[in-house]
Amino acid sequence: MDLNADLGEGFGVWRLGDDEALLGLITSANVACGFHAGDPATMRRVCAAAAERRVAVGAQVGYRDLAGFGRRHIAYEFTQLRDEVLYQLGALDAFCRPYRTRVRYLKPHGALYHAAACDETQAAALVAAVDDYDPELPLLCPPGSVLAQLAQGAGLRVVAEGFADRNYLPNGQLVPRTSPNALVTDPQEVAAQAVRMATERTVVAVDGTVVPCAVDSICLHGDSPGAVAAAELVRAALVDAGTTPTPFT
Amino acid sequence: MDLNADLGEGFGVWRLGDDEALLGLITSANVACGFHAGDPATMRRVCAAAAERRVAVGAQVGYRDLAGFGRRHIAYEFTQLRDEVLYQLGALDAFCRPYRTRVRYLKPHGALYHAAACDETQAAALVAAVDDYDPELPLLCPPGSVLAQLAQGAGLRVVAEGFADRNYLPNGQLVPRTSPNALVTDPQEVAAQAVRMATERTVVAVDGTVVPCAVDSICLHGDSPGAVAAAELVRAALVDAGTTPTPFT
Amino acid sequence: MDLNADLGEGFGVWRLGDDEALLGLITSANVACGFHAGDPATMRRVCAAAAERRVAVGAQVGYRDLAGFGRRHIAYEFTQLRDEVLYQLGALDAFCRPYRTRVRYLKPHGALYHAAACDETQAAALVAAVDDYDPELPLLCPPGSVLAQLAQGAGLRVVAEGFADRNYLPNGQLVPRTSPNALVTDPQEVAAQAVRMATERTVVAVDGTVVPCAVDSICLHGDSPGAVAAAELVRAALVDAGTTPTPFT
Amino acid sequence: MDLNADLGEGFGVWRLGDDEALLGLITSANVACGFHAGDPATMRRVCAAAAERRVAVGAQVGYRDLAGFGRRHIAYEFTQLRDEVLYQLGALDAFCRPYRTRVRYLKPHGALYHAAACDETQAAALVAAVDDYDPELPLLCPPGSVLAQLAQGAGLRVVAEGFADRNYLPNGQLVPRTSPNALVTDPQEVAAQAVRMATERTVVAVDGTVVPCAVDSICLHGDSPGAVAAAELVRAALVDAGTTPTPFT
Repeated sequence: MDLNADLGEGFGVWRLGDDEALLGLITSANVACGFHAGDPATMRRVCAAAAERRVAVGAQVGYRDLAGFGRRHIAYEFTQLRDEVLYQLGALDAFCRPYRTRVRYLKPHGALYHAAACDETQAAALVAAVDDYDPELPLLCPPGSVLAQLAQGAGLRVVAEGFADRNYLPNGQLVPRTSPNALVTDPQEVAAQAVRMATERTVVAVDGTVVPCAVDSICLHGDSPGAVAAAELVRAALVDAGTTPTPFT
Repeated sequence: MDLNADLGEGFGVWRLGDDEALLGLITSANVACGFHAGDPATMRRVCAAAAERRVAVGAQVGYRDLAGFGRRHIAYEFTQLRDEVLYQLGALDAFCRPYRTRVRYLKPHGALYHAAACDETQAAALVAAVDDYDPELPLLCPPGSVLAQLAQGAGLRVVAEGFADRNYLPNGQLVPRTSPNALVTDPQEVAAQAVRMATERTVVAVDGTVVPCAVDSICLHGDSPGAVAAAELVRAALVDAGTTPTPFT
Repeated sequence: MDLNADLGEGFGVWRLGDDEALLGLITSANVACGFHAGDPATMRRVCAAAAERRVAVGAQVGYRDLAGFGRRHIAYEFTQLRDEVLYQLGALDAFCRPYRTRVRYLKPHGALYHAAACDETQAAALVAAVDDYDPELPLLCPPGSVLAQLAQGAGLRVVAEGFADRNYLPNGQLVPRTSPNALVTDPQEVAAQAVRMATERTVVAVDGTVVPCAVDSICLHGDSPGAVAAAELVRAALVDAGTTPTPFT
Repeated sequence: MDLNADLGEGFGVWRLGDDEALLGLITSANVACGFHAGDPATMRRVCAAAAERRVAVGAQVGYRDLAGFGRRHIAYEFTQLRDEVLYQLGALDAFCRPYRTRVRYLKPHGALYHAAACDETQAAALVAAVDDYDPELPLLCPPGSVLAQLAQGAGLRVVAEGFADRNYLPNGQLVPRTSPNALVTDPQEVAAQAVRMATERTVVAVDGTVVPCAVDSICLHGDSPGAVAAAELVRAALVDAGTTPTPFT
C-alpha cells in the first residue's frame, strides 16, 4: 500500500502544513506546482527532500487561483485546462532533475479533483496533458471516477486512491462530505480502516457490510498537528500489520 | 548566421507582435514562458508552429512581473531567481514534447537581460538554472557580458548575440540606448550591417572604424508593422549575400 | 437614452479596444478595475479622459482572472465575491478623485454578468458590495434579471440595459447566444433598433411582434474597427431621431 | 505616543502574524492592501476589528509582488508607482466604509519603505498618490527621510516613526541592519527605550550619548510569539509611565 499526501502548499513567505513530518511517513508526495499553491523555491525544497528520502514526487496540479487555493470550481475550456496542466507538469519536473529523479504521477487538487471525478471536459483535459507529457505517467484518482474511466480508455495507468478517514457507502462510494457521518474521526478506527484496505482490500461500509475496496494508495492529511499524529498512527498500524508502505511506482 | 526574435508575448486575450510573420523569417524563437508574458495556450501554439517550420525554440525567461512586462529591474536573491528560471525552463519544455522537439537554448528578457549582462548574482542564477536543467543548453547573450563570462566559466556554451539595428562603439560595445545615435534607423543600413556581421564578422563603429563582431545570432524585432518589414529586409539581404540564416543549434 | 461601453480593458503593455474612439460616442464608460482586466495606469487614463468629456465612470467589476479575462465562471462564495467587488469599487473611485468626479454606477463583466443574472449568491454579493460602498450607486444590468430583482428588493436603483445588436424573443428576453439568429448584424438594423428603443421603448421580436423594452442604457461594443463604426452609426441615428444620448446618472 | 504594527498580511488560505493579539496593543494598524500581501476578505476583517477597538486604519502599501512579499526592490517608474499606490489607498478605504471609518494614514511596506526613505522618484510617487487621494492624509515614515522631506515640501503631514527594538547612532539615525548591534534584543531594554521616546523624546545612542528622538509613533512587530510578548511589555511600560498609547490621528 502506498501513502500519499499534499506537500509544498505554501507560497512566498506563507507556509502551510508540516512537509517535514509528512515526508517521514508517506511514500508519495503530491507537490503543488505554483498555480493554486507552491512556488519555485518550495518546489525545489520538497523535491530535494523527497529524493533524499526516496519518496516519489507527483504533480499536484490545480486551477490558476492562488487567492482561492484552487478550491473554487472554474469553468475551464478543454484546451486551456490541458495546457495549464501540461505547464505545471513540466515546471515541477524541472525541480526533479537536479536530484536525479522525475515526476512519477499526477494528482489533481481541490476543485479540479472534484470536477475531474465527474466532468468529462475537465477529466479529458487532464488525460490529454498526461498523454502529451508522458503516457507512462499514472494518474492518482478515485476508482470508478470519470477521470479514471477516461484515463483507462486512453491507455493510461490509473492508481486508485482511498481514504482511511472517510466512511464508505455499501456501493463502495464515499459518504458525501455533506453527510454528518462523512468522516471517520477516531484515530484508531482510521488506522484500522487503513490496515483493512491494505490487507483485505475491503472496507466496512456505514451499514456494516464489508465491501471491496481495491485501492493502491491511501491519502493522508497533514494540515494540522492532529492530522500528523493521525498519519503517524496509520503508518505504524500498517507496519505492525506487516504491510510497510511502499510507493506504487 | 542565426536570426532570433521574441515570440509568444501575449497573455490571455491580449496579443503582442506578429508571431506568424516572424516565424517565416527567423531560425530561433525566444518563447515567453509565462512570468513576464506568455501563457500556456500561447506557448503551445508557438511551439507547434516553430516545430512545423523547423525554427528552434528557446526559453525567453523573465522576472515574475506581468504588470511590468519584465522591464523593471527586480532585486532578486540568487536562489529565488535560479528557481524561477528553472521553473520556466521546465514549463516551456513541456510544450515542446508533443511536437517532438525540446527547448534548445535560454535567453533572458527585458530587465533580466540587462541585469544578467552586468550583475554577478543574477547572471549566476541563470547559469545555475541552466546547469540544473541541462548543461548542454546554450545561453544566448551579449559577448563579453558578465553572463557570458560566468556561463563559460561554468562550462556552458554561449551563443553571442548582435544587433543589426543598433550602433556600435569602437570598443565593440553597443552605443547606450540613452545616446541619440543608439539606433540604426535606415532599413537598408540595418540589412547591410547584418550582412557584414554574417560575412565579415565585423561592424562599422560610429567613428567609422571597422571592429570585430563575432556574433552567431542577430536579434530581430517584430512588435510593429515596420519592424516586420525591416526583418524581412534583413533576411532577404542575408540570403542574397549567400548566407541563408541557419539555426545555431 | 444612455450609451455604455467597456473601456480600459488592457493590462500592462497590452491594449484592447479603442478607448479614445468610444469616449467620443458613449455617455457611460464601464471601466475595468484590475481583476479581469485593467491596471492602475489605464484606470487613471480612462478616468481622466472620461471626466474631461463628461462621460460617467462606472465600475466594470469582474472575477479575479486575468488569464481568462473574467469570462470563465468561478464558483465564488458570497463573502469572497462581495469583498472582491467592494475592493474594485474603492480602487476605481480613487482614480476619479483627482479629476473631481466619482464612480457613478456598477456593471458586472463577463462570466460575472451572466452569473449575476441568474445566480442568487453572486447577485446578492454584488448587491451587498454596492450597499456597503454607497447605496446611492445604481447597478446597470438586464431588466428582470435576478440581480435586478435583488437590487430593487434591497432598495438600490437599477438601470435597465438593452442591446441594439441582439435579437429579442417575444417574451422580451434576448435570443440566446447559442441560437443562429442571436445577433443583429446589419448596422442599419442595429441603429434602427436603438432608435426604436429610445423613442418607443419597444423592440421588434424575432417573430415580428412588437414588445415593450423599457431600457435606459444601450450597450455598445468597441473591440474591433467594425464595432466602432457600428457604434458611430447608432449614435448618429439617435441624434438624428432627436434623442441625443445623455447619461442616466 | 502612538503604537503601530503591520496587520492583515495573510493571503487567501495563508495566515501571517497574530492580528487579534496586536489589535489589543496598538493604536494604529498598518493594513496590507493586496499587492504584496492582504486580500479583500482579510482587509474587511481587520478593518471591522480595528473600528470596533477604535484602532486607526492605515494603508500599508507595497510593491505588486506577492511572491516576494514586497521585500525585493522594484525599479518602478514614477507614474506606475503613484497609480499602484493610489489604487491600494482606494481599495482599503472601501473596507472602512461599512464600519463608519476611513483610512487615516499611509505607511509604505518592505522594500518600498526603504526605497522611499532615500529614492526621490519613489518617494515622490507616494507623495503624489496621497495628494491625489486626500491631502489631509498623513504619511508615517522615518524622520529626516527623503519621503519625509518631499511630503513636507508638498504640504502633507508627516508622522515620524521610531523603533523601540532598534539601536540608534549618535546622529539620530538607526544602526544599519547589517551591523551586529542593530537590534535591541532584551525586552526590558526595548520597553525602556519606548518609555524614554514617549516621555523624554530622546534615545540613548550606542555610544551612550543621549540624542533627541522626536517620534510620534513606535513600530511594534508581531510576526512571532516572542514579538507579541515584547509588544505587550512595551505597551505595559508606557501605561505604567503614565503615557497610555493614543492614536496620532
